[in-house]
Amino acid sequence: MSNAWWLQPCQPIDTLTLKQARERQRQLTKPAGSLGPLEDVAVQLAGLQQRLKPALDKVWISIFAGDHGIVAEGVSPYPQEVTWQMLLNFVNGGAAISVLARQLNAQLEVVDLGTASSVDNLPGVRHERVGPGTRNFAVEPAMTREQGEQALQVGRDSVQRALAAGTELFIGGEMGIGNTSSAAALACALLGCPITDLAGPGTGLDAAGVSHKAQVIQRALDTHAGLPSAPLERLFCFGGFEVVALVGAYLACAQAGIAVLVDGYICTVAALVAVRLNPSCRPWLLFGHRGAEPGHRHVLAALDAQPLLDLGLRLGEASGAALAVPLLRLACDLHGQMATFAEAAVADRSE
Amino acid sequence: MSNAWWLQPCQPIDTLTLKQARERQRQLTKPAGSLGPLEDVAVQLAGLQQRLKPALDKVWISIFAGDHGIVAEGVSPYPQEVTWQMLLNFVNGGAAISVLARQLNAQLEVVDLGTASSVDNLPGVRHERVGPGTRNFAVEPAMTREQGEQALQVGRDSVQRALAAGTELFIGGEMGIGNTSSAAALACALLGCPITDLAGPGTGLDAAGVSHKAQVIQRALDTHAGLPSAPLERLFCFGGFEVVALVGAYLACAQAGIAVLVDGYICTVAALVAVRLNPSCRPWLLFGHRGAEPGHRHVLAALDAQPLLDLGLRLGEASGAALAVPLLRLACDLHGQMATFAEAAVADRSE
Repeated sequence: MSNAWWLQPCQPIDTLTLKQARERQRQLTKPAGSLGPLEDVAVQLAGLQQRLKPALDKVWISIFAGDHGIVAEGVSPYPQEVTWQMLLNFVNGGAAISVLARQLNAQLEVVDLGTASSVDNLPGVRHERVGPGTRNFAVEPAMTREQGEQALQVGRDSVQRALAAGTELFIGGEMGIGNTSSAAALACALLGCPITDLAGPGTGLDAAGVSHKAQVIQRALDTHAGLPSAPLERLFCFGGFEVVALVGAYLACAQAGIAVLVDGYICTVAALVAVRLNPSCRPWLLFGHRGAEPGHRHVLAALDAQPLLDLGLRLGEASGAALAVPLLRLACDLHGQMATFAEAAVADRSE
Repeated sequence: MSNAWWLQPCQPIDTLTLKQARERQRQLTKPAGSLGPLEDVAVQLAGLQQRLKPALDKVWISIFAGDHGIVAEGVSPYPQEVTWQMLLNFVNGGAAISVLARQLNAQLEVVDLGTASSVDNLPGVRHERVGPGTRNFAVEPAMTREQGEQALQVGRDSVQRALAAGTELFIGGEMGIGNTSSAAALACALLGCPITDLAGPGTGLDAAGVSHKAQVIQRALDTHAGLPSAPLERLFCFGGFEVVALVGAYLACAQAGIAVLVDGYICTVAALVAVRLNPSCRPWLLFGHRGAEPGHRHVLAALDAQPLLDLGLRLGEASGAALAVPLLRLACDLHGQMATFAEAAVADRSE
């Protein structure tokens, strides 16, 4: 197990470039710190990309999709066929992420890790099916170890394609009716928070629905109380295939030296698993937004993550991360193109 | 006075298109409300632009600059010549707003309403000088009524040029060493807040500097306690020329039917004055960001404004509004280009 690919060390951050970039920020014609987190993120990207003036021209978006056995417990207001219907919508250009990818000139790929229906030749969708959806984790582990390792590899394979395309920023997204329940259970198992902190309305449950969902998850946590505490066991017990693929993709990015922009609640839980599995991946994870799902802020806090946007989004499918891309690009443009005080002959503050 | 141009009615919002746009949002392939304020702003822009699918391709940015007599009281850590030095930096392409305007493909104009130095032929700068900076409002009103009306007209003239260029979104910015003191005094006079709520570090005062600045402003407010309560009198007493130009520009936009994206603290105080002068302008004002200056949130709250970004910026020069432009454009793209549930054959939630 210690030879497992996901445990191999991630790329180190280039501390010399990081320092030079921080020095450059200090000399730009603006009060020091006045661009807030946009300064920090440009400096961090400089260190990650090992160049004083980082760029994010080539953005890659992989949407991982899978179905969830837990929906048998009535935890989502949407029918399960929406998962594959939305896959079609993604590749046909009508979904939010389709529009965003087009506008951002980002490469979009859609990966089916296992929908419940047997649809297996959707044109434009990459079928890498691990099973016909996960099992119901209220009753039994969501997937076998073999399935889990296979899903990790599916995420890693996406990163290989992204790497070959010269990707400068990787975004993972997810689609799977029921996957906020999976994420909440997994985060609970890892953080030891009360379930009421982490189970929320998802795509639109009412208060009674949220209460039922929390009870279902609590019961599942009790059922699996004897589970080993290792993050991988918990991931395979509660995760969806798409959540596991996200974990694999994040770790593969950090090993390959590609910066990651993490999306919403489910992706942030995957990021938490990735960091617990292999802490050296943490510097490679940037965070796009804080969503409406109440549990998202708990998981972000556990990662000490400060997302750029706080818009109360609750769509998933990588949309929140995609919406933050222009800000990251402008942060790089400001960092790379602004004049220094010396170049512009502007007086610095009198000190 | 009732014939004054700034009191004339603003364009009404098109309530039929507004309603149709809201209905369209409800049918797009996402959980209703899942794109949060991006849905609301697209709907609002549809009503303002009188078209079901609004667009923000043509963005115009006017930076208004002026110097402030109040700096004689030691309220800024920067020397006053920075105002005109930064004007040069704006037009030479090295300032933050220069970079942002270029990346956004926005038209940028730089208007000098009166710097303290006698520089009056900076290439690329539009000189519309109302005076050599304002007078020190700790001692006497910042400007005469004639100067004030002239500065309002300078703002209106910018909007005429923007209108001729087919502008779909107008952003006003400001540059003027000392202008957070002017904005704080003006907001205090209009809102009746304690000065400690509204005077902050600006571009970088320390705690002792903030305390001194608050005392200076409080003394000024006491000096002018007998001033008539009309917003225009207060604007001319405490305002900088660039603040007055912003007020004129916002009102002229609302009268001409151009949506406005308001920048940071100083611009938001100008927006407050505009709304107090002529409340019919309010629907035309969108808000880009909540800045680091503590007074900003008070003024935003007084306007019931919900900005899109909350990044702790404190640069001014329209940078915060410019950074929000991609989000507004993506909101329009999502609204205009996403498929409906019927078009995509995706099941809506079971209800």
